[in-house]
Amino acid sequence: MARLVMKFGGTSVADIERIRNVARHVKREVGAGHEVAVIVSAMAGKTNELVAWCREASAVYDADEYDAVVASGEQVTSGLLAICLQAMGVNARSWQGWQLPVHTSDAHGSARILDINGKALIERFRQDREVAVIAGFQGVHKDTNRITTLGRGGSDTSAVAVAAAIQADRCDIYTDVDGIYTSDPRVVPRARRLEKIAFEEMLEYASLGAKVMQVRSVELGMVHNVRIFVRSSFDRPEDIDPHGTPPGTLICNEEDIVEQQVVTGIAFSKDEAQISIRRVQDKPGVAAAIFGPLAEANINVDMIVQNVSADGATTDLTFTVPAADYDRATGVLAKAKDKIGYERLDGANDIAKVSVIGIGMRSHAGVAAKAFRALAERGINIRAITTSEIKFSVLIDAAYTELAVRTLHSLYDLDTVRHS
Amino acid sequence: MARLVMKFGGTSVADIERIRNVARHVKREVGAGHEVAVIVSAMAGKTNELVAWCREASAVYDADEYDAVVASGEQVTSGLLAICLQAMGVNARSWQGWQLPVHTSDAHGSARILDINGKALIERFRQDREVAVIAGFQGVHKDTNRITTLGRGGSDTSAVAVAAAIQADRCDIYTDVDGIYTSDPRVVPRARRLEKIAFEEMLEYASLGAKVMQVRSVELGMVHNVRIFVRSSFDRPEDIDPHGTPPGTLICNEEDIVEQQVVTGIAFSKDEAQISIRRVQDKPGVAAAIFGPLAEANINVDMIVQNVSADGATTDLTFTVPAADYDRATGVLAKAKDKIGYERLDGANDIAKVSVIGIGMRSHAGVAAKAFRALAERGINIRAITTSEIKFSVLIDAAYTELAVRTLHSLYDLDTVRHS
Repeated sequence: MARLVMKFGGTSVADIERIRNVARHVKREVGAGHEVAVIVSAMAGKTNELVAWCREASAVYDADEYDAVVASGEQVTSGLLAICLQAMGVNARSWQGWQLPVHTSDAHGSARILDINGKALIERFRQDREVAVIAGFQGVHKDTNRITTLGRGGSDTSAVAVAAAIQADRCDIYTDVDGIYTSDPRVVPRARRLEKIAFEEMLEYASLGAKVMQVRSVELGMVHNVRIFVRSSFDRPEDIDPHGTPPGTLICNEEDIVEQQVVTGIAFSKDEAQISIRRVQDKPGVAAAIFGPLAEANINVDMIVQNVSADGATTDLTFTVPAADYDRATGVLAKAKDKIGYERLDGANDIAKVSVIGIGMRSHAGVAAKAFRALAERGINIRAITTSEIKFSVLIDAAYTELAVRTLHSLYDLDTVRHS
Repeated sequence: MARLVMKFGGTSVADIERIRNVARHVKREVGAGHEVAVIVSAMAGKTNELVAWCREASAVYDADEYDAVVASGEQVTSGLLAICLQAMGVNARSWQGWQLPVHTSDAHGSARILDINGKALIERFRQDREVAVIAGFQGVHKDTNRITTLGRGGSDTSAVAVAAAIQADRCDIYTDVDGIYTSDPRVVPRARRLEKIAFEEMLEYASLGAKVMQVRSVELGMVHNVRIFVRSSFDRPEDIDPHGTPPGTLICNEEDIVEQQVVTGIAFSKDEAQISIRRVQDKPGVAAAIFGPLAEANINVDMIVQNVSADGATTDLTFTVPAADYDRATGVLAKAKDKIGYERLDGANDIAKVSVIGIGMRSHAGVAAKAFRALAERGINIRAITTSEIKFSVLIDAAYTELAVRTLHSLYDLDTVRHS
């Protein structure tokens, strides 16, 4: 017997038929003798509808009221899943954030979970074998007693936090992919599913826009040492042996990965634009003068590269923004030219960022150098480079994305070999 | 300065534009210096959608979970109205049933309000001139901490209960009619709006299917002596003088009505079917044998007439059911013929019930006799009669409904005379 958290996202609960399918997944685990808490998102599309209403009501809306409105989506799903489970003979009840309670900070719209009381759930597991169906994404602020939400994708965080609170043996994240891959299989046909990935690596994946899990949920799992298992919600519940090892990827501590590879995967994002500010004054405050106006214009700046000044007075500064924001960003910077003080702007809006991730880089030298050489051999020009302890990223022309990703995937021995 | 409760139903909050219109109504009262609590229903259609999902999830669903699902509709409206009010510069916040709290019984799906704590609202009126936007229809059970709902139309009850809790000077029910009429103006063009109506009379109206207010909300108003004012939500907020007397009908104590008329109004319902059981055994338990199976088949029996037995052994028993249930009802009774013991069934499914209501009947004799005579003069056959202290009802052929209603309306001097 194990204690499990099962989390299902919006597309898995998009209508009653799918909610019933989720109930079958839950019943399978209960039938195998497990104690189960389920975390559900709002039915697909519902949160968007609710957010749109808030915006229609007022361009600038009160985050307290926004939370009261949007939290209703998860409330509905939790009740419906409890009904479906009961109809299958599984003892179940729904829990709202304020009922459990899930105490959060008062940062409405993007609150942080402070503590969850798991006692009631554990008691009910033991006494009544009752499945807890918990509305994800929401909590309550202790002092004000008002509903809070955790920000988009917050149900992942709810799931991991509940898993920590009830000391679950595993937190299963059911999603539309059956795990974490070494790269996007649509681009790299030889990409393979990772059996295990370390929290730190998964954090990089999540930050790089692989939308499998919310960044904060991975952080939380790392802090509380929750074994997170990413698996497919599309598998037929009947086909799964609850005692076997289903397909999926376990996100776990570095120590739990016996054969750690140097590189775990290749991530990439297209639709990036690169902006270079030439001969900008190399003095304190200049970064603020550049990125302040961009932030005010709600333009998300990603990778920033600043080289050491060659002449001691000026330097070149390069960064990326979403391609869709390229024109706006250059406009903002042109307007602020006098204030910033630079010679000219260069840029391109057909750029890709390719990243190589692997915790093994910490202890292996020359991992990046190997990549630069391989890309050069293919005639791929590297526009900029950034590195961190367990990953490095290069900016290249978007046209070379697939070639670069496949080249690196082979280079680091990530290709499937079993079926070749 | 007065303390007001304002209640808006589903059609008044069907979309953001209408919710904004509601906000304008509220702002008008706040601008006049009043302290305001608003009770809102779910946006039109939402409750039906949520109920349909529950039914799709399971034919027999848990009422606890049903409540968690359907209560979300009012939650959404309360947040959206608070946003609209804030956008107009009116200080406002939403309250869910569990936040106030509105404590109810644990009869999920049709809970009764036990108590409401109005202290927090009154404090906030005084300190911050804050409008309370309260989700109607919902509450919470004290011991289980679970969401409850009050049954369809329950927002009226929420409004009256909140009005009692905060000792409101008036409880305004905004609806799609501008008050209570002496009869349905579509049938009786000369029907006129009543300025005042006694609680007891309004209870009869509500029971007879005039869908302006839920029966229980009227009962609650009577018990707690809440002045309920039925008025139109379609009036443009700008056209209303908050210090004047708007069009509408005040539901109040009998004593507050100076010139009480003998008859207040004529109600009617078509789509009734009449079933007569001929020569049924006149013995204890026979009523249970008849109405038990009908209740089990979910057939709503309305008017029941049983005459004193003429031969001491058998009697005729007549009652009405909705016309749509006529075939099912006769089927049920035919099946139970041996158990009940009767000679034959008679019936008709094109029947109307016409009712004459007036608290003055208590002290005036011959009110009904006058009606029977007038109907006879018009050649309208009365099939059955029931009476109570302040109303009497007759069953007639549906074809004569309009004639009968208009005849009675004139008979009791209810016709508008001002404009004739």
